[in-house]
Order: sequence, then C-alpha cells, then structure tokens
Amino acid sequence: MNKSKVLNVVLVAVLIVLSVKVVSNRENTASAQNPQTVVQSSRATLDVIANRVSVREYTEQKVAKEILETIVRAGMAAPSAMNKQPWQFIIVDDADILKAIGEKIPTSSMAQRAPAGIVVCGDLSKAGQGWLEEYWIQDCSAASQNILLAVTDLGLGGVWTSIYPAEDRIKVIAEILSLPDHIIPLNIIPLGYPAGENKPKDKWSAENVHWNRW
Amino acid sequence: MNKSKVLNVVLVAVLIVLSVKVVSNRENTASAQNPQTVVQSSRATLDVIANRVSVREYTEQKVAKEILETIVRAGMAAPSAMNKQPWQFIIVDDADILKAIGEKIPTSSMAQRAPAGIVVCGDLSKAGQGWLEEYWIQDCSAASQNILLAVTDLGLGGVWTSIYPAEDRIKVIAEILSLPDHIIPLNIIPLGYPAGENKPKDKWSAENVHWNRW
Repeated sequence: MNKSKVLNVVLVAVLIVLSVKVVSNRENTASAQNPQTVVQSSRATLDVIANRVSVREYTEQKVAKEILETIVRAGMAAPSAMNKQPWQFIIVDDADILKAIGEKIPTSSMAQRAPAGIVVCGDLSKAGQGWLEEYWIQDCSAASQNILLAVTDLGLGGVWTSIYPAEDRIKVIAEILSLPDHIIPLNIIPLGYPAGENKPKDKWSAENVHWNRW
Repeated sequence: MNKSKVLNVVLVAVLIVLSVKVVSNRENTASAQNPQTVVQSSRATLDVIANRVSVREYTEQKVAKEILETIVRAGMAAPSAMNKQPWQFIIVDDADILKAIGEKIPTSSMAQRAPAGIVVCGDLSKAGQGWLEEYWIQDCSAASQNILLAVTDLGLGGVWTSIYPAEDRIKVIAEILSLPDHIIPLNIIPLGYPAGENKPKDKWSAENVHWNRW
C-alpha cells in the first residue's frame, strides 16, 4: 500500500466518526431547542406573573374538566395561616348557572360569556377561632392569585371579580350555588380561551419601594 | 495525479465541512440544552406553584439589591380591586432591623437569621372609601403570593409571616420601620438562599372541589 492509500483509509475513518457526531448532535439540539417541550408546556414564572392580564372576553371553546382541576390544584398549593387550608372551590361550567350569576351580579357580568368560572370560598369550619378566623381572606386571596397564574400559564384568561365583603353579592352566590352558612364566597373567576388582545399593564412604581424604613 | 490523491483532496474538503458543522452544532446545543438559560433563569409556572415551600432557614449569602427589586416588581404585578394598587413595599436588608423584628415578633423569629425580608403594606391613602377600603387585604395578599412565587423562581426561599390583623405586631413593625398611620403592614416575608431541604406539601384534596353547586 502506498502512502496515499493509507491516508485514504485514515481520512475515511475520521469521516465516519465525524458524521456520527453530526447526526447525534442534531438529535440533541432538536429535543433541547424548544424550552416549552423541556418544561412541560409551561411558561416561565416571572414572565407569567408580569404578563398576566384580566381577560373579560372569551371564545366559545370549552375548557376541559382536567384543565379546570389543574387550575384548582394550583389554588390549593397556596400557603395558609397555620396551614388551616380554609378553602373550598366551586368549579362552574354549567351555562345556566354562569348566566344566572352574570345577570344578577353586574360586576361579574362576564360570567355569562365565559365557558367556566371558579368560585373561591372561605370555609369557616376549617378557619381559626376568634380573631384568627379572618385569615381565610388572606389565604383564599393567595389561592386566587395562584389560580390566575395557572390560568395564564395554561393559555387561558380569567378575571378576579369580587364577591366578599359585598353582602348582596354573597347572598346571590350562596343562593345560586346552595352554599351552607359557613362557606363564604370570596370571588368568582370567570375564565376561558381569550378572545382578542389584552395588553398587560406595567404597574411598577419606584415610589412604592422603600429600603429599611419609610 | 493518481486516483488516490484526488480522493484524498475530496476527503479533506468533506472533513473540513463536517468539522465546522460539529463545532457549530456544539455551540447551539450549549445554549439550548439548559432551559434555565433559554427562559431567562425562570422555572415553569405550574411547577413553581406546586413546589413552593415555606423556607425558614437560610445560608449567609446576601441577596443582591437587583434581585430584591425584581421580587417586589412581581408583587406590583398583582391585580387589585378597581386597580387601586393600594400597596407599599419595605425591603429590609439591614441586619439590625431584621434582628429587632425577629426578636420582638416570635412568629417572625426567622427574620433574625434571614439576609433580607419584604414587608408588604396596605396604603389606605390609595384604597377605596367606606366598605371598599378593606380590599387592600385581598390585593396585598395577591401581591404577597406573587412575591413568594418570584422568590421560589429565583432560587431563593421565603415564608409569609403574618402581621395584620394582630394589633401588637402591627405596632412593633410600625415603630421599627417608622410607618405613618395610613400604612398597615400585612406581613413580613423573610427570605434568603435556602439552607437544608424543604419538601413541598401535597395539599390537593378532592373534597375541596365541587362542580356547579355545593
């Protein structure tokens, strides 16, 4: 064999090794290049927090029951004072009930146009005693914020419409949903797939930030 | 030139092309293989919501002022009733102040061991009038939950320790931080880089979920 032929053999061998490397690199890149697939179809947290918007118009697309349960699961992951978890969640996807709520409570009128809604309630039978009882408001508010972020993360849109402490609204919801006396609705969050564009507000204000004292 | 030499020239040319491809693929993979870098150091939202834990022990590592501001920015992104944004945020990273708070409020004792803390306050001068005033509690609770999720997302840990409505705790915080009368501290969230392991609780309970009525 002359030198040229030896070189041929060496070059072919190196070529084979390199070709294998190129193909395997390409496969790695394909699975890694889209962070959405890597992080289970979920958007980044700071991005979701900053870009959450109040969505009041929805398409006619239904929201799957599994998705509604995932949203409520996020609510239950909130912290609560003394870990009392003094909450209950009513998932409403019955069009007649949504229509009744939306018609009777003007500030929740978008419920009539929403394919679903979640009513976040305080459960006084699980709350603390005496002055500790009112922590249900803070706990259920934290759960509501988790719900809004989960809604955003899942490509849906919703809006926190207040029920508590408006006595008339509490009465309407309690009647429509047959709530017992110890269950106090904090809000209803109508939700669905967003129709139209909603631009997030930039609410940053340096005047709201103080270092170490007022 | 004999055939062997021609083949060598061709092989070397192909080798050069392949080598360039290998190097460029490797660079693509390096930037794409870690979703943390792709999505701006942020974890997936549902994951952060589910795995947030109350962190009460911290390493001695300081928290950069830019990170503390990012956390407070997340707080300000919360929704508020009638968009009043009735909140103020006191960022505390002065060790003496943290020590004073932790010593005087037993339920916030971990503030003594934390490199920083955020005091979320209601601002009654921005709140609604009459019965609408108390919405600051819900609004500041939503902001607090955003803060806890941002803390988790950034690799830090914190814990919501309650101040309002405990009159004695409100008085201590108001004195230490020189708060005017219209500023009501809802909580202090001591935070830092977590020391030790903290396992998230699974708080899912099917009994808390109701469909369409109680």
